[in-house]
Amino acid sequence: MKIDVTKLQPMVGYAIVEPAEKETVTSSGIVLPVDASGEKPCYGKVLAVGEVGKDDPKPNFKKGDNVVYKKWGGNELKIDDVAYQILKIEDILAKVA
Amino acid sequence: MKIDVTKLQPMVGYAIVEPAEKETVTSSGIVLPVDASGEKPCYGKVLAVGEVGKDDPKPNFKKGDNVVYKKWGGNELKIDDVAYQILKIEDILAKVA
Amino acid sequence: MKIDVTKLQPMVGYAIVEPAEKETVTSSGIVLPVDASGEKPCYGKVLAVGEVGKDDPKPNFKKGDNVVYKKWGGNELKIDDVAYQILKIEDILAKVA
Amino acid sequence: MKIDVTKLQPMVGYAIVEPAEKETVTSSGIVLPVDASGEKPCYGKVLAVGEVGKDDPKPNFKKGDNVVYKKWGGNELKIDDVAYQILKIEDILAKVA
Amino acid sequence: MKIDVTKLQPMVGYAIVEPAEKETVTSSGIVLPVDASGEKPCYGKVLAVGEVGKDDPKPNFKKGDNVVYKKWGGNELKIDDVAYQILKIEDILAKVA
Amino acid sequence: MKIDVTKLQPMVGYAIVEPAEKETVTSSGIVLPVDASGEKPCYGKVLAVGEVGKDDPKPNFKKGDNVVYKKWGGNELKIDDVAYQILKIEDILAKVA
Amino acid sequence: MKIDVTKLQPMVGYAIVEPAEKETVTSSGIVLPVDASGEKPCYGKVLAVGEVGKDDPKPNFKKGDNVVYKKWGGNELKIDDVAYQILKIEDILAKVA
Repeated sequence: MKIDVTKLQPMVGYAIVEPAEKETVTSSGIVLPVDASGEKPCYGKVLAVGEVGKDDPKPNFKKGDNVVYKKWGGNELKIDDVAYQILKIEDILAKVA
Repeated sequence: MKIDVTKLQPMVGYAIVEPAEKETVTSSGIVLPVDASGEKPCYGKVLAVGEVGKDDPKPNFKKGDNVVYKKWGGNELKIDDVAYQILKIEDILAKVA
Repeated sequence: MKIDVTKLQPMVGYAIVEPAEKETVTSSGIVLPVDASGEKPCYGKVLAVGEVGKDDPKPNFKKGDNVVYKKWGGNELKIDDVAYQILKIEDILAKVA
Repeated sequence: MKIDVTKLQPMVGYAIVEPAEKETVTSSGIVLPVDASGEKPCYGKVLAVGEVGKDDPKPNFKKGDNVVYKKWGGNELKIDDVAYQILKIEDILAKVA
Repeated sequence: MKIDVTKLQPMVGYAIVEPAEKETVTSSGIVLPVDASGEKPCYGKVLAVGEVGKDDPKPNFKKGDNVVYKKWGGNELKIDDVAYQILKIEDILAKVA
Repeated sequence: MKIDVTKLQPMVGYAIVEPAEKETVTSSGIVLPVDASGEKPCYGKVLAVGEVGKDDPKPNFKKGDNVVYKKWGGNELKIDDVAYQILKIEDILAKVA
Repeated sequence: MKIDVTKLQPMVGYAIVEPAEKETVTSSGIVLPVDASGEKPCYGKVLAVGEVGKDDPKPNFKKGDNVVYKKWGGNELKIDDVAYQILKIEDILAKVA
């Protein structure tokens, strides 16, 4: 079974985010992690937003927006080497306007 | 006592999921875990959904749907080498439409 | 004091379960644990169900039913080498219909 | 100060239990712990029951009843080598009828 | 600043307890800890009781009563080698009548 | 940026406390920590009290009072070698009358 | 993707803070961490405040104010070597008036 990320419908209280691509490339063309400390990115584009549960904060973002999210605690779903994030709405921190 | 998984009726707030089969087979025919890091699959088919409790989110999936679920925290029930998952409804993250 | 398990009356929100017997016997007649990993059984027969508390889920099982329960978190009570389980109703996962 | 256990009045939501005596005696008369694993007893006689708090389950036991209680989490009070248990009412699992 | 314990007024939901003195004295007059395992006392005299908060259990003790309290979790305040306990009302287990 | 502690306005549910000075001085004039175990002081003077939140206990202290507070869990703010404490109102244990 | 911090709109219950610059410079011009213990700063300027959720305390600060915040628990977002803090409103401790 291979999952098509565009067909994922998040459950109540979750959103799916595609992490920003790693863009740090050295002059010799070697792809490096996002920063020297090897941290993974914590921002990306919202692919889908689930229904908002009665205890969830009201999201200030929608499908297509770029958002910053918590580094830890999300659920990674790897498809073709992309680590999609299925995040609780409350673990999304800010929208990039 | 041997359990017939089709006869399991989940308690309030739980669902039973059959994990997707491991499909990674090398050219030499050796079956490998789903990815190089040896991670177990975290998606599969819903076999049964229990009654929805008053504090549970309303599921957007039903029997027969494919879903993505949290890697950790579920209850494994092994029958004939299949590790069925008995999951809290809130630990199912998304439906594959 | 020796306890007669048939005389135990569970408190509000608890049920008592007798684990399924270990049935794995090798061809040479040696009794083995339920599976190769030495896991203890996590299903058995309900002996008694306590009153359902106001925050407990409504059980879909009754005395005499076979149920699957969480591997960890129950309270073992050993009587004559049987490790009876006194379980929170919410820690019972499914009924075997 | 030496405490007379019969004069203890449990606070709201607590009960005091006198653990069953260890009765395992080998043929040579040596007293052994209750079972081979050295586990302490987890049943005994209720000496006193405090007022039932608004969030406590309604006890199905009273002073003088024998009860089974959780192995861990109680408060031991040693008087003359007896480890009396001061237990939350919710940590008592079952009454021996 | 030196604190006079008789002038302490506990906050809402707290009580101040003076632990029982260690009384174990060997025949040779050496003061020993309360018991062989070196455990600290867990009973003493109530010096003051704060206002009862809306979520606190109603205390069955008052200033001057002797009480048993939880071994762990209290706040020690040492004044002249006495380790006074400032305890949540709910961490006091029983009154010595 | 250097902070003037007298200009700090605590958020809802917090109070700011200036710890009591260490006063233990040996005969030779060497300043020692408050007690032999090196424990830090856990009492001091209230400099400011924030608004009382709807879930906070009602404080029995005000600006200028001396209070005893929990040893752990506060937020230290060091200014000129003084470790001011920004404490939850509920972590203040008693007022020195 | 490079984020412009002035375009970040915090989610419900969050605020974004720019930490105070490290100002400790030795006579030889070497920049040192804020204090000898290498602690990171825990105060700075509020850049943006999200909507106040129904369970959040009412902030006593607004955009442009200087605030003190908890050392641990915030979410760092590094942009051009500045570790911006995306903080829960309840993790901001005091306003510098």
